[in-house]
Amino acid sequence: MRQTATLLVSCNDRKGLVARISDFIYRNGGNILDFDHHTDLEAGVFLARIEWELKDFQIPGPLFAGAFLNLASECQMRYQVFLSDQVPKIAIFASKLPHCLVDLLLRHQAGELRTNIALVISNHKDVEEIARSFGIPFKHFPITPQNKSQQEEAQIREIAQQEIELIVLARYMQILSERFVSTFPNRIINIHHSFLPAFIGASPYHQAFARGVKLIGATGHYVTTELDNGPIIEQETARVSHRDSVEDLIRKGRDLEKFVLARAVRLHLLRKVLTYGNKTVVFD
Amino acid sequence: MRQTATLLVSCNDRKGLVARISDFIYRNGGNILDFDHHTDLEAGVFLARIEWELKDFQIPGPLFAGAFLNLASECQMRYQVFLSDQVPKIAIFASKLPHCLVDLLLRHQAGELRTNIALVISNHKDVEEIARSFGIPFKHFPITPQNKSQQEEAQIREIAQQEIELIVLARYMQILSERFVSTFPNRIINIHHSFLPAFIGASPYHQAFARGVKLIGATGHYVTTELDNGPIIEQETARVSHRDSVEDLIRKGRDLEKFVLARAVRLHLLRKVLTYGNKTVVFD
Amino acid sequence: MRQTATLLVSCNDRKGLVARISDFIYRNGGNILDFDHHTDLEAGVFLARIEWELKDFQIPGPLFAGAFLNLASECQMRYQVFLSDQVPKIAIFASKLPHCLVDLLLRHQAGELRTNIALVISNHKDVEEIARSFGIPFKHFPITPQNKSQQEEAQIREIAQQEIELIVLARYMQILSERFVSTFPNRIINIHHSFLPAFIGASPYHQAFARGVKLIGATGHYVTTELDNGPIIEQETARVSHRDSVEDLIRKGRDLEKFVLARAVRLHLLRKVLTYGNKTVVFD
Amino acid sequence: MRQTATLLVSCNDRKGLVARISDFIYRNGGNILDFDHHTDLEAGVFLARIEWELKDFQIPGPLFAGAFLNLASECQMRYQVFLSDQVPKIAIFASKLPHCLVDLLLRHQAGELRTNIALVISNHKDVEEIARSFGIPFKHFPITPQNKSQQEEAQIREIAQQEIELIVLARYMQILSERFVSTFPNRIINIHHSFLPAFIGASPYHQAFARGVKLIGATGHYVTTELDNGPIIEQETARVSHRDSVEDLIRKGRDLEKFVLARAVRLHLLRKVLTYGNKTVVFD
Repeated sequence: MRQTATLLVSCNDRKGLVARISDFIYRNGGNILDFDHHTDLEAGVFLARIEWELKDFQIPGPLFAGAFLNLASECQMRYQVFLSDQVPKIAIFASKLPHCLVDLLLRHQAGELRTNIALVISNHKDVEEIARSFGIPFKHFPITPQNKSQQEEAQIREIAQQEIELIVLARYMQILSERFVSTFPNRIINIHHSFLPAFIGASPYHQAFARGVKLIGATGHYVTTELDNGPIIEQETARVSHRDSVEDLIRKGRDLEKFVLARAVRLHLLRKVLTYGNKTVVFD
Repeated sequence: MRQTATLLVSCNDRKGLVARISDFIYRNGGNILDFDHHTDLEAGVFLARIEWELKDFQIPGPLFAGAFLNLASECQMRYQVFLSDQVPKIAIFASKLPHCLVDLLLRHQAGELRTNIALVISNHKDVEEIARSFGIPFKHFPITPQNKSQQEEAQIREIAQQEIELIVLARYMQILSERFVSTFPNRIINIHHSFLPAFIGASPYHQAFARGVKLIGATGHYVTTELDNGPIIEQETARVSHRDSVEDLIRKGRDLEKFVLARAVRLHLLRKVLTYGNKTVVFD
Repeated sequence: MRQTATLLVSCNDRKGLVARISDFIYRNGGNILDFDHHTDLEAGVFLARIEWELKDFQIPGPLFAGAFLNLASECQMRYQVFLSDQVPKIAIFASKLPHCLVDLLLRHQAGELRTNIALVISNHKDVEEIARSFGIPFKHFPITPQNKSQQEEAQIREIAQQEIELIVLARYMQILSERFVSTFPNRIINIHHSFLPAFIGASPYHQAFARGVKLIGATGHYVTTELDNGPIIEQETARVSHRDSVEDLIRKGRDLEKFVLARAVRLHLLRKVLTYGNKTVVFD
Repeated sequence: MRQTATLLVSCNDRKGLVARISDFIYRNGGNILDFDHHTDLEAGVFLARIEWELKDFQIPGPLFAGAFLNLASECQMRYQVFLSDQVPKIAIFASKLPHCLVDLLLRHQAGELRTNIALVISNHKDVEEIARSFGIPFKHFPITPQNKSQQEEAQIREIAQQEIELIVLARYMQILSERFVSTFPNRIINIHHSFLPAFIGASPYHQAFARGVKLIGATGHYVTTELDNGPIIEQETARVSHRDSVEDLIRKGRDLEKFVLARAVRLHLLRKVLTYGNKTVVFD
């Protein structure tokens, strides 16, 4: 495995951004493996992802952010840098349905997700045994209307303490408070079991069945304070027919949910997703 | 080409329906080619499509409806019978965008649609030449707020007079009045350029772009008095990314629209679509 | 859960088959839930699947085959009847790769597969723990060129003794002998990790990478004595690009393999697959 | 419409390529709109596509190739540069089936293909009228075993004389000679009506029907001297079932063929396709 650094950048568009960033990496001895960029011409926004080898790179990882500051300031860039030897930590939130959780654990085991799954959190105890069988710590936070904000505060502390970067809602059946969501901007990924923006809210498969659609869908998105309205990372659809009952939709939907959530999480962990406005750029 | 009859039936579910209908055809010398049925167990509704060869069938086509009446009455069936030598007539409504119209004309020419395209109707003159180049009569019904109901009455008369069975809205950019729609229940097929029920109404590609979806869609449906809410016949989606502008969505969407509308019309003309409640059964 | 019987029939096409079969069920008090049939006009073959409720059905399950014999003989039908309360037993063969095995075990646990997984068989010990953790007996049959035919005989005895109906090859990396395959006609389902007939044989992902295809595929099929050439039950494809390495193809392919194998097995267990010639009819 | 230049580059991989190329454009006043690159680590090959605005670019278009020579020589690059105001000319070869030809003509009319369709060539006269109705010159080259090489020489002269860049085989039913193919390396795009490498050669739909596949496909590829074995640009599949006859496969396949060929041609014309070995890199 080669050691690499990945830089995510966004700023107002201007001439020379590709050249100046790549020149900065090159002059410091870095070998660029991937340079992906996108300019939203209408919005005038430049977004880029650059990954380079650290072998022969003259700036030590922890000093890069400082060394890049001059160029970044001049162009008023927002930027983040990630080193491949710093494996990000995630927490998976689940409720009673285990399929998305198990799918992520299996993919992690198979080496598909470069992450450290630090914690499984649930408002129920149904998935405790599964988490433990994969050697992942499990914490039970039962939620009632009365204790909800207290429990969320405890969750926030837990996540901060463990330095968890990403929260994955794997069919977690609680609506998170504005306070919780605001604490983790672009750091919570949810799987919604419909093709958003169709069938927002509860029971999308029942809604889909009632409407008589010929395709069902699933959507992986960052969570914002507006329900099911955050930036979309990934979507997929599957064919259904009049022969499919609601139960069939739920069964077929499980495959979509697992697949879409895993892809969204994987893309995030590979630092391939940038957000701007309420949209994502996915350098796939 | 073998001569066939096709019977579409719906009624409350009860024991023996498959046996009694197939026995009726068989006793009268018919060779059943296709017997498709579906029971919505929750709604308690039985729906079926039976196609049989007319060679050796002892009931002449025009007399079938009468001969079947006894059984139909006993089971309180709603039913329709179609003979393969009676080619259905359709009218295509278009506005300025030609792609769906041309696609249907080409498919008809290639033998994909067993129909007689009797008429192209438009509120503009843009597609007149195209219609005429395919040898299809064209009628111009310019629409203003003032003349709309008059023009619709004239259209209704035209359709009645020519005994047109199906109206196909091939990106026709006028909202039809309740009066018009009610005159042709389950006889108007529209293509909506989104994955319904997402992005109802105007400019769905602009809506899709603004929302940042990763798939766009198209929906072929029967028109009812509630906008974009009629029974869905067919849907399809296609992948888009941050690199696609609204214009790219429109371009990619044209392929979806053509494909989905053609499939919906074809299925209708093959008598493979039944409706109940606000849903369809498609015996594909 | 309603008790049902399912009849699979194939014979030369002739007039009245739908009517006479459905009449037989009806006269004996059965309520037909599904009557699916297909006639291959070119081959002159009629194939059907009929499922009916056993409540009020006057022929006890075990006597049905006899009672149906008259009609079956007259029309020279091959037929099988399955009762919903007789849960079929399957054995899963795996080697070192666990993903298809785990996927089937999880789907079984989730209630997607109406079967009794009686046994996991492997030529290695890698998946033993997984099988046991799901409470499924595991048998190790290490294979060498010297012991192969002996081991296969032992496997055949095991399968016969346990009355296992279906063998599922879940990425089992041994080519079965002609003797083994011939013992279980239409009773072995394999997942091949390509879009057959492309990339027959070993290392299809490497072959696909070398050829530079833009889609990869997976195929679920019955095993016959000709390698990767049995009747196809299900196929699916997924998009790849120049950015995907062989490892990426393998990773993306795992999802296809799991999905396609599970669908093929599910369709078989629901008695929705008939074979004729080297093809299948899938009443989905 | 902004004026742009597009540079396609390939060479052995080495450090600094992204930086040095982008720096060259930037130093000369160019605003990079797209910088796409790919390194095949195994083959050690670097491939890139750079598009930049010509406004403020200090090197006049015709002089760019010379100005870039120093850098190119040093890195042993193969490169081509294309100016957006030089619209490439194509010739479409067709036989009797019109659907791919008509589809390309319609897409051109709709503004989807930035090209000048200079000529339609056919070995039959069936599509002459279609070509003329779109205002495209038509040339008839009837082919017999006796005159084939003569006719090909005449075609080669015609293409050279008209400075046609790309030849599109839109279901052209003649196998081109090695001499013809070698004259236009990476300049002939063919649509093959199967998912290559399955069903190479004649009558792929009949082959697919005989094999009983559950998906059919189409492949757009550059033509090389080995039949149906050139670098693949685009592929797509569609679902079929036992209910589909060979005629249904042909009908469904037409949609795939049109779609895939149009995409392959569009990508080529946008200079988004590079080849190396027997593969393509498609910067989509």
